[in-house]
Amino acid sequence: MKPPAEIGMRLEDVDTPALILELDAFETNLKRLADLVKGRVRVRAHAKTHKCPEIGKRQVAAGAVGVCCQKVSEAEAMVEGGIADVLVSNEIVGARKLERLAALARRARIGVCVDHADNVRELQAAAQRAGANIDTYIELEVGMRRCGVAAGGPALELVKAIIASPNLRFAGIHAYHGRAQHIRSAEERRAVIQNASLLVTNTKTLLEKNKIICPIVTGAGSGTFMFEVELGAWDEIQPGSYVFMDWDYARNEWAPPMPRFEHSLFVLAGVMSRPSALLAVVDAGLKASSMDSGMPGVWQRPGLSYTHASDEHGWVEIGPGAAAPGLGDKLLLVPGHCDPTVNLYDWYVCVRAGVVEALWPITARGAVT
Amino acid sequence: MKPPAEIGMRLEDVDTPALILELDAFETNLKRLADLVKGRVRVRAHAKTHKCPEIGKRQVAAGAVGVCCQKVSEAEAMVEGGIADVLVSNEIVGARKLERLAALARRARIGVCVDHADNVRELQAAAQRAGANIDTYIELEVGMRRCGVAAGGPALELVKAIIASPNLRFAGIHAYHGRAQHIRSAEERRAVIQNASLLVTNTKTLLEKNKIICPIVTGAGSGTFMFEVELGAWDEIQPGSYVFMDWDYARNEWAPPMPRFEHSLFVLAGVMSRPSALLAVVDAGLKASSMDSGMPGVWQRPGLSYTHASDEHGWVEIGPGAAAPGLGDKLLLVPGHCDPTVNLYDWYVCVRAGVVEALWPITARGAVT
Repeated sequence: MKPPAEIGMRLEDVDTPALILELDAFETNLKRLADLVKGRVRVRAHAKTHKCPEIGKRQVAAGAVGVCCQKVSEAEAMVEGGIADVLVSNEIVGARKLERLAALARRARIGVCVDHADNVRELQAAAQRAGANIDTYIELEVGMRRCGVAAGGPALELVKAIIASPNLRFAGIHAYHGRAQHIRSAEERRAVIQNASLLVTNTKTLLEKNKIICPIVTGAGSGTFMFEVELGAWDEIQPGSYVFMDWDYARNEWAPPMPRFEHSLFVLAGVMSRPSALLAVVDAGLKASSMDSGMPGVWQRPGLSYTHASDEHGWVEIGPGAAAPGLGDKLLLVPGHCDPTVNLYDWYVCVRAGVVEALWPITARGAVT
Repeated sequence: MKPPAEIGMRLEDVDTPALILELDAFETNLKRLADLVKGRVRVRAHAKTHKCPEIGKRQVAAGAVGVCCQKVSEAEAMVEGGIADVLVSNEIVGARKLERLAALARRARIGVCVDHADNVRELQAAAQRAGANIDTYIELEVGMRRCGVAAGGPALELVKAIIASPNLRFAGIHAYHGRAQHIRSAEERRAVIQNASLLVTNTKTLLEKNKIICPIVTGAGSGTFMFEVELGAWDEIQPGSYVFMDWDYARNEWAPPMPRFEHSLFVLAGVMSRPSALLAVVDAGLKASSMDSGMPGVWQRPGLSYTHASDEHGWVEIGPGAAAPGLGDKLLLVPGHCDPTVNLYDWYVCVRAGVVEALWPITARGAVT
């Protein structure tokens, strides 16, 4: 895939739609996170958000111990791109995937989550065949009702199964509450994480009683991580969206201790039709910006609202008194949800002060397996 | 991008998630459409749905005159893949895009839509610079309230602007009502298309009064095309989804004259967690099947319902008495919306009688510009 722009080009000359990364805001976000948690927890940034080793390497340079991924194929892209320490913060099931995971563990430090004893057996067999060692975490069900083993007894049994597997190293507890990230009220988010914290602490205590050391508790996202830090039960946090700050996250209530990050990710869209005084149609629809968490925001254009999307078109309504964009004008949209939006593109067009400074390939785009 | 499967492999061995095309159903759909409209209208199949020249070529072999696209980059991929006649059924605005469109018109028969005189001037300038001739259609606003020029006087003026442009050939009227396709009631769909038909006929009559021949009226989608055929104002239809038949289209009421097509497109998903007796978590979330038009259906597994998606996970609820899938079992999902789902993948894994028969690259995947 050919890059969609050239270095040195002005932003307004970039063809539309294009995925834009504003480097100043991006670097501010990297530093803001690092400064906040330095000396308190480790950062393992989530690469499912950006799918780009160039970004992963900058997160590591800013202090992260490595990255998380959700898929083996994402982890392969990260290792290929130079990241030496990757946790697949997810269950990996099936012989083909586990064979690839085990092969990867011969090239880099690889972790994975389990929530079922059958999966532990399958993982051990794959690791043994490859002659690999794999950091294995139990995923704890902390209220999200997705994957995960129940706290207490079931968690203890699963840890014992890991410890009994010669090629697996019990690496700790993965405790992540995805749904909590987007609860609007900061107090409610804190309360949900407090409940999760109790489940983590109870399980750690049970492991200690059984003379099992839990090396790491890892989890937390961009909407809650300071609650995890303050509650003290987590050793490592996994924020992903903080580098970009999408429009859905912007709707959260942000109050100390949770920082608000800067919008750094945009979709550049072009006005392709002006059917009426009240409407501009742009060339970025739901194949250019994921609509699963709501419509994108229109950046710094008061009175313009993106209200509806079809596959290749977006409806931008022009409010009373708003400066109306003309045919061919370009607008910056803030995606509703950054992760699936990034997954639609092959390149970040990295811009500073209105000029394209770099083009970063999204090498894990489409990495679903 | 490496293919996700090998030819000769059994479906149940294909790694998940994967985009599956059931060839028998696909070929049935090609034939069903061709048989229905043969001798009545031309078919110009919409390639925005499949983004794959291999499919486009089979549509042409089944009688289509060529394909439609929504983007210049899609049209480039189709011409590159061997399609000789492509209509960009959309407005193309901006010097960079128009330069590419005009260059393409030197290699293949290329059509495009306009809805504004400024765009006609820009298009003529680009065609002249390239020494190209471009088939130019006016897009008529037929009730969708997206792009398009108003019927009657404004349409006539725009046609005159095309005719006055030496490198543009007035090719006809593009009249497509996208929103009508998914109206559930067949009678309501017919009524909406009947209104569109009046606007088309009035505009054609006005052109005739002005001694302007309208070569082609083109439009119609998979939810309505037989209404366009029966109303008689259209010469060419543009169905796209008929080759796949997604879960959202399945919710339409299908009654003669509108045929129901067969589901040929699936996402193969793997069960990665069984947190409770009532829930299976699969490895296909909203990066594997677009959720913009609702959740996917679970194919031929009574009592299983895909009820919720996160980025990389799907919740499959297990109803009373349903056969519960085990860890590692695979399910076929029928995507809620085929077009944006296809756009997430690089390959079709083409299957017949449970065996992988071919792998077709989705060369226009991500072609947004």
